[in-house]
Amino acid sequence: MPTAQTLDELAAQLPDGALITDPVKMEAYRWDRANDPDAGVPLAVVRAGCADDVQATVRFAAATDTPIIPRGAGSGLSGGSTAQNGAIVLSVERMREITIDPVTLTAVVQPGAFNGEVKAAAAQHGLWYPPDPASFEFCSIGGNIATNAGGLCCVKYGVTTDYVLGMKVVLSDGRLVTLGGPRLKDVAGFSLTKLFVGSEGLLGVITEVTLRLVHAQRRPSTLVATFKSLEAATNSVLGITQKLRPSMLEFMDNPTINAVEDETRMGLDREAAAMLIVQSDEPAGFAQHEIETIAEICTAGGATECYHTDDPDEGEAFIAARRIAIPAVEKKGTILLEDVGVPLPHLGRLVEGIEEISRRREVLVAVMAHAGDGNTHPLVVFDPTDDGQRERAHLAYGEIIDLAVSLGGTITGEHGVGRLKRPWLADYLGPDVLELNHRIKRALDPQGIFNPGSVLEIPEGS
Amino acid sequence: MPTAQTLDELAAQLPDGALITDPVKMEAYRWDRANDPDAGVPLAVVRAGCADDVQATVRFAAATDTPIIPRGAGSGLSGGSTAQNGAIVLSVERMREITIDPVTLTAVVQPGAFNGEVKAAAAQHGLWYPPDPASFEFCSIGGNIATNAGGLCCVKYGVTTDYVLGMKVVLSDGRLVTLGGPRLKDVAGFSLTKLFVGSEGLLGVITEVTLRLVHAQRRPSTLVATFKSLEAATNSVLGITQKLRPSMLEFMDNPTINAVEDETRMGLDREAAAMLIVQSDEPAGFAQHEIETIAEICTAGGATECYHTDDPDEGEAFIAARRIAIPAVEKKGTILLEDVGVPLPHLGRLVEGIEEISRRREVLVAVMAHAGDGNTHPLVVFDPTDDGQRERAHLAYGEIIDLAVSLGGTITGEHGVGRLKRPWLADYLGPDVLELNHRIKRALDPQGIFNPGSVLEIPEGS
Repeated sequence: MPTAQTLDELAAQLPDGALITDPVKMEAYRWDRANDPDAGVPLAVVRAGCADDVQATVRFAAATDTPIIPRGAGSGLSGGSTAQNGAIVLSVERMREITIDPVTLTAVVQPGAFNGEVKAAAAQHGLWYPPDPASFEFCSIGGNIATNAGGLCCVKYGVTTDYVLGMKVVLSDGRLVTLGGPRLKDVAGFSLTKLFVGSEGLLGVITEVTLRLVHAQRRPSTLVATFKSLEAATNSVLGITQKLRPSMLEFMDNPTINAVEDETRMGLDREAAAMLIVQSDEPAGFAQHEIETIAEICTAGGATECYHTDDPDEGEAFIAARRIAIPAVEKKGTILLEDVGVPLPHLGRLVEGIEEISRRREVLVAVMAHAGDGNTHPLVVFDPTDDGQRERAHLAYGEIIDLAVSLGGTITGEHGVGRLKRPWLADYLGPDVLELNHRIKRALDPQGIFNPGSVLEIPEGS
Repeated sequence: MPTAQTLDELAAQLPDGALITDPVKMEAYRWDRANDPDAGVPLAVVRAGCADDVQATVRFAAATDTPIIPRGAGSGLSGGSTAQNGAIVLSVERMREITIDPVTLTAVVQPGAFNGEVKAAAAQHGLWYPPDPASFEFCSIGGNIATNAGGLCCVKYGVTTDYVLGMKVVLSDGRLVTLGGPRLKDVAGFSLTKLFVGSEGLLGVITEVTLRLVHAQRRPSTLVATFKSLEAATNSVLGITQKLRPSMLEFMDNPTINAVEDETRMGLDREAAAMLIVQSDEPAGFAQHEIETIAEICTAGGATECYHTDDPDEGEAFIAARRIAIPAVEKKGTILLEDVGVPLPHLGRLVEGIEEISRRREVLVAVMAHAGDGNTHPLVVFDPTDDGQRERAHLAYGEIIDLAVSLGGTITGEHGVGRLKRPWLADYLGPDVLELNHRIKRALDPQGIFNPGSVLEIPEGS
């Protein structure tokens, strides 16, 4: 346990102002968007400006056996950067450099840069960084990599890990290592780069990342279809994915549609059981053809209305509606945000089962989904002043996870386990795979200084 | 060290005939295509028919401290399944089941199935498994995953790891675990599936894999361009990749062109310094447009001839020429097969440097490359009866690796380290990353029974 004196030693190795111990200033570093009520009060916050600062902090933590909570933009939804009593929150928010190489089609990015900043920098060269979590305007690349973040375009373009070619990481003993790099193929040694993607700050602190870029996306055509039943909508999802690969395939259920309509007054069908928003970014002519094929599938599948447009602005209005779905539902009460996913054929049973849970538990559950990936975000809504409702909401939350797992699904598709989903991880993985996770953790962080208690339980005797 | 008696105990747990100890029959299991002259004589070969057989064999090996050499189709080019004295070669060649799920667009495949068999099974449902090593007709999926195999279509469609959703693996203590599955997004726990891809048989034995499939590829258009200089060809590669993303972008140098022409008499330009074969599989009309743009880039870049065709059979003839390049060069002598890759901007310096090494060392080096990925296969050719030439060939081989690394490249882009590249791994990774590799190995195979001496040196005292 470090003393004030030893903390001064750390401060001396950092630029002026990088070490914060003022409780008022530290307040902003205690929570991410999961708003964990059990968040602790950290010993200090370090706002690293470069890899050297990260190394100095990690070495100090290792020497004094102090936990480190790595932190990007604090936009995480699973509580993976929740502060703990006595820990050092290591923020990379100031490390924001982005260098685009238009020849290798790569970006070298510091972890604090926002996803949207990388997209913008790439766009200046006619290039595109596809992964697009709904929070892309305020989430960091470091956090995206820590959680292997997804988004809306994944159905065609894959997730974060598919775009990570290499990284620099500070290990638990303070060493800085380089994994991978701007080589499109490299199989020398174990796939350590891929192991660090999705490791949620448990294995090291990423100080730089090399991302693969692609050429700018073509302007998409957009289709919106509404359905009288959940089954008709999810069957249409299956019909679409079996035939072609749209560049977006999103789902909103009735409570979500209504929350969005309350917000936007854009004229969505408040009676619809569900709505699909689909895009195709095939070349001109072919996108229209794809969208027409999708319209036929939806119509044959019982869509009550089917509208499509080639106008990018009009299409973007529907995507914007999808993107504001979470904030729109948040206005209805306090929310518990889910991230369960199932193999595609079980999407229908999942959303129908969620509707049943909502009814039985008498709590509102609004479901939006990256339907083409089988990845859903049910939002359990409750009145925080109503203890009974709060309890029923938490029961519903757990039942939704259990339902997803019983359908061969996962407890988290793209948000990460963090502290929020940790109670479900052991059952989901089973004892053998859980033990493998612990072995990897011990191998790379034997002292257990990185993000203890997030994702994995702290082993007894540690 | 097992005795004949204990081997009988293993045999009793396996189906009749699965355990082979006859030295004549074992001969076929001592080498892969790397033909390592130091291959040992195994204690036994187990031809596993199911996961139970694999588990029984691994448990026996763990109990008796016997090394296990996992083996797929034996088509590896880096010696990763070279037999060792006293080891058990564990072949999965009989585990060949393939189940296609056209709804989830996945294939569940046993490791011994050939890549081409998976492609064929997928094609029956209008689906496609993209990764296409040149050996796809006789390489196993298990081996593809062990090496994170690449191929010709990677430039647009990525490598093996991009298509692996899950797997069943027998661990070093004989437990069978399931990692991932038919979920398109799943971030619960560390990315263990990705860690096992490319692990070259050092961490476990894969007994089943879940692969992601995509819809059938469109018929490509094909362009062939010849160049007077290596520089003109590699500059054209850069010009192409900066503008668009072809579905194939292959390179052959003059010695390769001549070896292929000797074989095919198809009328290739024997004077050309290099040749590019490029395909576009965009929708009809757009493919032609892409190919015309590529033709313009090549012509502006100094192509002496530029020919393109929409006829799939005619296009396939050029691809076939590229595919027989290795066998064609093999007819010129004994070969040392390279697999070095560089960041794309250094491709020119790599191939020019290789030409210089070839001249200086007075040995033929034929270079073919997955140019769009910066991944090259220089084949160093020598007369095995000429000791001086053999020695110069080995010197050239090492110098080519050193050159690639000096250009920021890798010692292996898609074939794996195996036993062949092991001497170069430590320098390439550096001591810190090498040590991380050893930590992962110890964490998952503490006894060191899986493929010892392949990829990593056996640590002292083990």
